[in-house]
Amino acid sequence: MTTPRPTEDELIARSFAPLAGPGGLGLLDDAALLSPGPGRDLVLTVDAVVSGVHFLESDPPGAVGHKALAVNLSDLAAKGAVPTGFLLSLALPEHWDPAWVDGFSQGLGEEAAAGGCPLLGGDTVRTPGPLTISVTALGEVPAGRMVRRTTARPGDRIAVSGSIGDAALGLALQLGPDARWVGRLSAEQRGFLVDRYRHPRARLALAPVLLAHARAAMDVSDGLAGDLAKMMRASGTTAVVESSAIPLSAAARHALGADAMLFDRIVTGGDDYEILCCVPEDQLAAFVDRAAAAGVPVSPIGRVVQGDGLPIFRDPGGEKRYERGSFTHF
Amino acid sequence: MTTPRPTEDELIARSFAPLAGPGGLGLLDDAALLSPGPGRDLVLTVDAVVSGVHFLESDPPGAVGHKALAVNLSDLAAKGAVPTGFLLSLALPEHWDPAWVDGFSQGLGEEAAAGGCPLLGGDTVRTPGPLTISVTALGEVPAGRMVRRTTARPGDRIAVSGSIGDAALGLALQLGPDARWVGRLSAEQRGFLVDRYRHPRARLALAPVLLAHARAAMDVSDGLAGDLAKMMRASGTTAVVESSAIPLSAAARHALGADAMLFDRIVTGGDDYEILCCVPEDQLAAFVDRAAAAGVPVSPIGRVVQGDGLPIFRDPGGEKRYERGSFTHF
Repeated sequence: MTTPRPTEDELIARSFAPLAGPGGLGLLDDAALLSPGPGRDLVLTVDAVVSGVHFLESDPPGAVGHKALAVNLSDLAAKGAVPTGFLLSLALPEHWDPAWVDGFSQGLGEEAAAGGCPLLGGDTVRTPGPLTISVTALGEVPAGRMVRRTTARPGDRIAVSGSIGDAALGLALQLGPDARWVGRLSAEQRGFLVDRYRHPRARLALAPVLLAHARAAMDVSDGLAGDLAKMMRASGTTAVVESSAIPLSAAARHALGADAMLFDRIVTGGDDYEILCCVPEDQLAAFVDRAAAAGVPVSPIGRVVQGDGLPIFRDPGGEKRYERGSFTHF
Repeated sequence: MTTPRPTEDELIARSFAPLAGPGGLGLLDDAALLSPGPGRDLVLTVDAVVSGVHFLESDPPGAVGHKALAVNLSDLAAKGAVPTGFLLSLALPEHWDPAWVDGFSQGLGEEAAAGGCPLLGGDTVRTPGPLTISVTALGEVPAGRMVRRTTARPGDRIAVSGSIGDAALGLALQLGPDARWVGRLSAEQRGFLVDRYRHPRARLALAPVLLAHARAAMDVSDGLAGDLAKMMRASGTTAVVESSAIPLSAAARHALGADAMLFDRIVTGGDDYEILCCVPEDQLAAFVDRAAAAGVPVSPIGRVVQGDGLPIFRDPGGEKRYERGSFTHF
């Protein structure tokens, strides 16, 4: 402990009230207030992050604040929603450091400002365990238009935004810095992968494009293979993915060149926070064009097919299925 | 571990999908959907409970499920809101017991049904720490009508529902069963106090009465003295409380008779989940009558006065102020 610890009220006034939107009532009340626009549905999502599980104790506090909100904004983006605001539930360990919380709230506030998603309210408690942050984010869509996870149809093309596997490699290289493939990366490439782990980008710019063209969507948080299996199961379908079509960053490609076994980690590792979606064949060209115009690259990687097995990942060398349990983070 | 542990999907399907309302989409999607009625404001509140901090590891799992939701419904009631639904964020320790989670979800589901507050969505994660449950509850009020915490005025009468201090005594007698006063209670009285700790009642029946008659309100979670100080500070006022007017149960009165020092614990101990409110003088009679008609006893205990010090608790023996830090649970 380096600084005297403020009381709960002081902590809220200092670190969190500056992040509050009008509905937060200055965080002086014990509830928040929201008046959704007419003709709008509210979309709600909740995601928790736990120190040592979803982020490393060594991660900069600002990055933890960024990530705690970004993973929820990513869910809203996948549903086609525009962010409205969020609630924060913070469980602080016994010896919490006010300077850490200052850094955390700064990163959180920057992501809130970038996402147009002010703080509405929250709760702060003590825990004998690790720092635990649970964020409930709210967004709005035109009534009846939320993009579901359960509505993929055979024949739909499957697309994914950005690049896959960077965050998983960024985590792996921090946990095992002596691996041979890590030594083959430049300092810049290593920095890129670590940054992708620490600072997931919520693809909010893709939300209106999904509303216009996608049949189903979700964000990739537990790994491409596992999340695709989940979406296909929920839709009563399965999928065929062309492994070579999965978009990789230059750094991930370089790592894979050094160790071909990393492919499984790339597709199962998680923490991507990219958008996985199903688009009717006749919408695909327009979807790709509008996404590019919105500044988000998207790549077709496969197709929804009839059936109820696990999705097939295929390449010229053969086919692969990722069993449940090989990827679950739970 | 007594039973094989299900996967996250199996856990959701078995324990939580039965609690889902229509907006929960069967918990098959990664977000929930809500369409607030026209002319309604949404009221949002979040409260976390941590094993060993907000409940005892020995508490029955059903009671923990009940409490996790009830403490949030209590916040909604204080704001005059009718519950709409809730989101659950559950951090399970390494060796979680499926039978425990079954009991938890049953207690949670019973309280959700009683409160008309279905599950809308959630997130389940692992934690190396203690079981941590964060609930975000949503409710609705007529537009512009949420009962605030910040709007008490000098001259208002202060009232509180039910009885104060039971839960604090119920916790104390579990932590220190050998105390002299505990021995003076009957088994029935001890059982009553423990039950008040384990099963807080959200005073939802009081919500429309508060909407009609209260100027300001909050629920009592951190102790009457601390929460009153908080409401007065937020309103720019202070208060005078007649200590003898604070409503006590027969069991608490009996305990106090055995040990007069328990009074401080009764007013600072917390976990009451009763409603504390400020009512204009000319509304008090109607407020008390309508509350009684709704099945909720309320007791006037004091008055809002000008000033910015801590509230005064007075009795024929003298006056008392409860310093900050003597009551904070944070």
